[in-house]
Amino acid sequence: MSNPKGKQAADRLGVGFVGSGFNARFHMQGFQAVRDAEVRGVWSPNADHARSAAALARDLDIGAAKPYASIQDMVADPLIDALWLTGPNHSRLDNLEQIVHAIESGKGALRGVACEKPLARTVAEAQRMLALAERAGLAHGYLENQLFAPQIETGRARIWARGAASTGRPYLARASEEHSGPHAPWFWRGDLQGGGVLNDMMCHSVLLVKHLLTQPGAPRASVRARRITAHIASLKWTRPPYVARLAKDFGREVDYAKHPSEDFASLMIEFETDDGQSLIGEASASWSFVGAGLRLSAELLGPEYSMSWNTLESGLKLFFSREVRGAAGEDLIEKQNAEVGLMPVVANEASAYGYENEDRHFVRVFLGKETPRLTFADGLEVVELLMAAYQSAEQGRTLEYPPPDLDKFIPAVARGTWKPP
Amino acid sequence: MSNPKGKQAADRLGVGFVGSGFNARFHMQGFQAVRDAEVRGVWSPNADHARSAAALARDLDIGAAKPYASIQDMVADPLIDALWLTGPNHSRLDNLEQIVHAIESGKGALRGVACEKPLARTVAEAQRMLALAERAGLAHGYLENQLFAPQIETGRARIWARGAASTGRPYLARASEEHSGPHAPWFWRGDLQGGGVLNDMMCHSVLLVKHLLTQPGAPRASVRARRITAHIASLKWTRPPYVARLAKDFGREVDYAKHPSEDFASLMIEFETDDGQSLIGEASASWSFVGAGLRLSAELLGPEYSMSWNTLESGLKLFFSREVRGAAGEDLIEKQNAEVGLMPVVANEASAYGYENEDRHFVRVFLGKETPRLTFADGLEVVELLMAAYQSAEQGRTLEYPPPDLDKFIPAVARGTWKPP
Amino acid sequence: MSNPKGKQAADRLGVGFVGSGFNARFHMQGFQAVRDAEVRGVWSPNADHARSAAALARDLDIGAAKPYASIQDMVADPLIDALWLTGPNHSRLDNLEQIVHAIESGKGALRGVACEKPLARTVAEAQRMLALAERAGLAHGYLENQLFAPQIETGRARIWARGAASTGRPYLARASEEHSGPHAPWFWRGDLQGGGVLNDMMCHSVLLVKHLLTQPGAPRASVRARRITAHIASLKWTRPPYVARLAKDFGREVDYAKHPSEDFASLMIEFETDDGQSLIGEASASWSFVGAGLRLSAELLGPEYSMSWNTLESGLKLFFSREVRGAAGEDLIEKQNAEVGLMPVVANEASAYGYENEDRHFVRVFLGKETPRLTFADGLEVVELLMAAYQSAEQGRTLEYPPPDLDKFIPAVARGTWKPP
Amino acid sequence: MSNPKGKQAADRLGVGFVGSGFNARFHMQGFQAVRDAEVRGVWSPNADHARSAAALARDLDIGAAKPYASIQDMVADPLIDALWLTGPNHSRLDNLEQIVHAIESGKGALRGVACEKPLARTVAEAQRMLALAERAGLAHGYLENQLFAPQIETGRARIWARGAASTGRPYLARASEEHSGPHAPWFWRGDLQGGGVLNDMMCHSVLLVKHLLTQPGAPRASVRARRITAHIASLKWTRPPYVARLAKDFGREVDYAKHPSEDFASLMIEFETDDGQSLIGEASASWSFVGAGLRLSAELLGPEYSMSWNTLESGLKLFFSREVRGAAGEDLIEKQNAEVGLMPVVANEASAYGYENEDRHFVRVFLGKETPRLTFADGLEVVELLMAAYQSAEQGRTLEYPPPDLDKFIPAVARGTWKPP
Repeated sequence: MSNPKGKQAADRLGVGFVGSGFNARFHMQGFQAVRDAEVRGVWSPNADHARSAAALARDLDIGAAKPYASIQDMVADPLIDALWLTGPNHSRLDNLEQIVHAIESGKGALRGVACEKPLARTVAEAQRMLALAERAGLAHGYLENQLFAPQIETGRARIWARGAASTGRPYLARASEEHSGPHAPWFWRGDLQGGGVLNDMMCHSVLLVKHLLTQPGAPRASVRARRITAHIASLKWTRPPYVARLAKDFGREVDYAKHPSEDFASLMIEFETDDGQSLIGEASASWSFVGAGLRLSAELLGPEYSMSWNTLESGLKLFFSREVRGAAGEDLIEKQNAEVGLMPVVANEASAYGYENEDRHFVRVFLGKETPRLTFADGLEVVELLMAAYQSAEQGRTLEYPPPDLDKFIPAVARGTWKPP
Repeated sequence: MSNPKGKQAADRLGVGFVGSGFNARFHMQGFQAVRDAEVRGVWSPNADHARSAAALARDLDIGAAKPYASIQDMVADPLIDALWLTGPNHSRLDNLEQIVHAIESGKGALRGVACEKPLARTVAEAQRMLALAERAGLAHGYLENQLFAPQIETGRARIWARGAASTGRPYLARASEEHSGPHAPWFWRGDLQGGGVLNDMMCHSVLLVKHLLTQPGAPRASVRARRITAHIASLKWTRPPYVARLAKDFGREVDYAKHPSEDFASLMIEFETDDGQSLIGEASASWSFVGAGLRLSAELLGPEYSMSWNTLESGLKLFFSREVRGAAGEDLIEKQNAEVGLMPVVANEASAYGYENEDRHFVRVFLGKETPRLTFADGLEVVELLMAAYQSAEQGRTLEYPPPDLDKFIPAVARGTWKPP
Repeated sequence: MSNPKGKQAADRLGVGFVGSGFNARFHMQGFQAVRDAEVRGVWSPNADHARSAAALARDLDIGAAKPYASIQDMVADPLIDALWLTGPNHSRLDNLEQIVHAIESGKGALRGVACEKPLARTVAEAQRMLALAERAGLAHGYLENQLFAPQIETGRARIWARGAASTGRPYLARASEEHSGPHAPWFWRGDLQGGGVLNDMMCHSVLLVKHLLTQPGAPRASVRARRITAHIASLKWTRPPYVARLAKDFGREVDYAKHPSEDFASLMIEFETDDGQSLIGEASASWSFVGAGLRLSAELLGPEYSMSWNTLESGLKLFFSREVRGAAGEDLIEKQNAEVGLMPVVANEASAYGYENEDRHFVRVFLGKETPRLTFADGLEVVELLMAAYQSAEQGRTLEYPPPDLDKFIPAVARGTWKPP
Repeated sequence: MSNPKGKQAADRLGVGFVGSGFNARFHMQGFQAVRDAEVRGVWSPNADHARSAAALARDLDIGAAKPYASIQDMVADPLIDALWLTGPNHSRLDNLEQIVHAIESGKGALRGVACEKPLARTVAEAQRMLALAERAGLAHGYLENQLFAPQIETGRARIWARGAASTGRPYLARASEEHSGPHAPWFWRGDLQGGGVLNDMMCHSVLLVKHLLTQPGAPRASVRARRITAHIASLKWTRPPYVARLAKDFGREVDYAKHPSEDFASLMIEFETDDGQSLIGEASASWSFVGAGLRLSAELLGPEYSMSWNTLESGLKLFFSREVRGAAGEDLIEKQNAEVGLMPVVANEASAYGYENEDRHFVRVFLGKETPRLTFADGLEVVELLMAAYQSAEQGRTLEYPPPDLDKFIPAVARGTWKPP
């Protein structure tokens, strides 16, 4: 932060988006609640998408956003102070390399880069992400929204203050992210995405359980993974009718008869702490959950207390009878599965899932007002845990953590060779 | 909006607070999510309070707020574009008179004034509030947070779009605001506050039920009150142990043996619509509700659908066992009544109750970017409905609406002559 | 109890049903959990219905039930010890007259008669019911299931034991019964049923709120109605599409364009107690509520505690996506309104709504093992309250209770002359 | 059933209890809703306990129960037709041996024996239980209450009928049983109980997940365990303050510094089906969960549907403020952990947890009216799964199922040699 490399400290952070899809648009919703930032640019390999996302930003009145022809152009523009990397997983590293190249070749400067989860698809890629950011002297932030969800922030603070302080630290954290499957084709392809639902969604959980178990203010290394056990399965999407549906919806490139990804993952991490205790983190991720819509949930348990979080208990419920004919949509909740019956509504998803707080935090970080709570180093740790989980699942056994040669490992799902059990 | 009277259109709205108490601090929380506004000033008759509230604003980094010695000084400062009136009910009119006097005597100018609910304590006062604002050419906004609660905004929109559009308009709305009693002494005194819980809390409900029953986009007058029936009672706070507690907590000035206010109110409004239908609004308000904490709830029902809202179903629950000893507080929820057992937590109350959206809206209104959704005219209508409700309760009968001479009416509770049934 | 008039005290009570419809079948479900009773007979004016209901009782293995040709035959059969009156409201008095006539003419004897709510359609009829039972020396029980719902029994006991004992009696009770409309045509006809939803469903609430407010063990007269205010309305079923639907479903005899019944009722009762306190009971009843299904709910509030009951929070939720095509049914919940989306399921409705406990209690009463908790005198009081409520609604004002000439009053809805406001 | 060995078919089944503790008393509550059975005897090694439990049965009016001096005496009494084995785990086999010995030595006869879960502590013991019952020609029933919980019965039926029938069978079942620790000392001792919470509580889950995944009507073997992975841990009760509390509450015999049992267990079973599909069952059990009280929960998920069950969402909630001083108790819920705050109440636990339906079923089985849904063979299968789970947990790896030599296995916890990780 101390060295903005040629861009002046400003009142407001000029933000550019690399990526223009679902995730970028979620962040744009979030920026409506962020003071001190202007969304000024969008780059996408698809120029139409960039134009459309920039128009959305202007409509939301979060900045005079315009499309850029290249990442390099955004770096070069003095109006752009920081970039939010929100493209698909397989572009992450290439995007950052372009950024760093532009900086190192003197085209421009940035105060920082924020990268959407997961940081990368393999440990090797993630190490490269961190090394690039550090080499270029960039402030870096890791975008894990769930840690910023208001209920997680508040719940964790109260549990530690009221419960753990007087009766002892929590010993069990659970987290899960479950929905009925992602929106875009590349998510479904192990070769592009780097895996299936374990990679896509459990990146949230592994960090969340560790975060909940860590005393606020204590170093992250005060809670360390010691053993890891994971399972992956294809429960739904390799059944023939669903193989056919994927082909119909996403084209021949998504062929789950030949190259399936896991749609269910279960994980247990045994942790040890600085004060010699054993803790447990349980995580679950699913693309084969059919409820009202996306369900984020977590629990934190200790000797005389417990906490539970569930985004589907949202305080707002609508009921439509069988007489109401309505078009399928996502106006009630992300990944919505019905339009009649009782339906919980998450009224402001950008707030509920943590985007508002997250984007506010990293804006303030890049303005020099706050210390980053999550950096690429956290993103790297998450990838290490996920790759160990894939190893455990492939070998069908519990692994001491870290297993050897993590940085050479590529999941069978990513290599296209996975056979569901 | 069209005539900012000498202050330049600026990027950011300079906001000053008249009042420094509980409500002002809630709005300050809300401004953390508001772009394009700077909280620059606070005035309170108690200079220490003003200093403390200004310090809070600076801590929250929502502007370089400083205390002002007078309302006139805030009006005079070109950095202040708009004022948020958040003082106690009995100061409302005096505060606005000072503002208008300062403007009319050329001391300064303002783009607008936003006034916290209720607009005034009587119809006569409310009429005077509206007249003053209009005479001074001030843009005016009425701060009814519940209409801006994300769940109300989203729920109402979806119900009308999915349910009413195909099966007919809703016919019944219910709303209630219930808690265990207010924080500051003046709330408890009918002479200062203008009434008891009916005045304090049902101002929310009467507008909310009308709002839910009104088609989005249709004029407010498309749904008109026709008959009104209200009851008020003292259920808890005139019981001797609670009379004693009030005296202990708030001093001799709050004497519920002699001058009680109602702590329970129930209201039914029969509405008629432009298209000739009869609708019903039910409202309930309580200072004698003892649950986890403040409970805001509403329902909207129509021929093939229903909506329900309850802030205590917040998605986050903490449990503390009987072994956990914790100090009484309000860290879990506003007006919290226990520290152990299962406790719902409202993680971001400023968002959940609508302050963030509300403050964002009126900032944008005063910047000329949006049309006000609520003005002092709405505030006046609310006071008219509340006064009619007091009349109905005092007379023990249903009244045609509007009853005659509403503008001369002062509730018995406000006059200190009310005897609970 | 002391004088079973010629039938021997037996191990098991022989039960006969007068009526064979929805309500009788609900009780039969309940008898599966009742020891010491055998369902041995069913009479209905429709012999096929009687045969079918008797077959159901045998299938449920609750007794060797057979259809009877007349009420007199059931009274005459020594195997029948008690009758459960479950026929339509307009047959109630006639049914009992036949019973008493059979007894008085020496055809047979009974230990007791249990009568489904409401006891009668008018105060005059209800007085006659009570007089007949007493003249014939019959033990009598009033079947108000909600007082026997396990959650009401337990909740009331715990609230009074833990809350009221140490901090004072409760002061506010609320109850409501809401669904989307009854099953059989006669319910919809004011002339047969005696009214609309106020008569049909609020008979539950008025007794429930009084019961909750009464100290366990104290006489019922320790809590007395003092003032009463009611509203009735037609919110849904006089809208033209719904008038048409009633005609289609139930035939020309149900003509809501000409002879509507209220589908919404709201009631406030102000009570006074032996110890000089003022309490409030609020009740709501609806045939215009469209949620998952029947919703029974109640609250009881006191100075430091509260209780809430909602049958739709049943602990079991099913979700079916928009891909699931299912026939409309009532397999998830009574008066079910959808087959997809999130649906709460009441797994054992006969238990949840109180039928099991209720039937067990009255069996034991008629076997001489327990004192009746509810008699026709309670049923009469309920009718008095309901008729006062209709008077209040018709006159649009609060009434001192009891109003004069209650025993001559017949609601306009029952006379077919009601015009919705 | 076909051969009641000398006792006459009777109207009512005469039931005797072996055991007089917590579990026996729960069943006695359940028998209040069971027709056709009389509880006539209780035997306990502690004669006072037997007397007290028999008195409870008489108070509940479920039969003229009396204490017996020996198991043999109960078998010999012609009034006793069937025995319910509800004693502690370490007495199970001895109890049955006495029964069989009495029968085989001609002292008396029985129609059947119902045995509380778990059937035994090891596979060898369970095999012996089954062999004894069969040798004596006894009808046998395995008492797993959760399969009879109304919500499980109804939920499973509706999911299969509405969801699986049209979109495919479910693929994932989850179940958990969590509370803050058992009541009696022997539960805590691995040597007596056979293990810790895995043995005590997961016996419910392993059968429940299999049951939910099995098509109603299909043979149990249509879903077969293929692989199993378990973890056990001591999260709470080996922390020094809790070691001390156990010693204080239960005496020196419960020494968790030296001989702890696991208080947390997690299990994944991979199943295969007759139609070649892979399914997953997840189970969790805890004595280290501190919420309102006992929490039973389950989920069942399939391609277009899901089901969730949670006993703490009971429809009845009480709130007591911090002003209410109440003695610790279990009047709100089993294993209650607080007396103030929001507390869910399970109004009729004997119904909610399945005891009523379970006892009714086995009474009817022994009267020859129904086919047993669960026999000792099911109990044996449960023990096999649990022992495989312990093996997996001890070895820290996934096991193919069944692993070799299951019948020789005794868990380290039962041998007193377990060291928590």
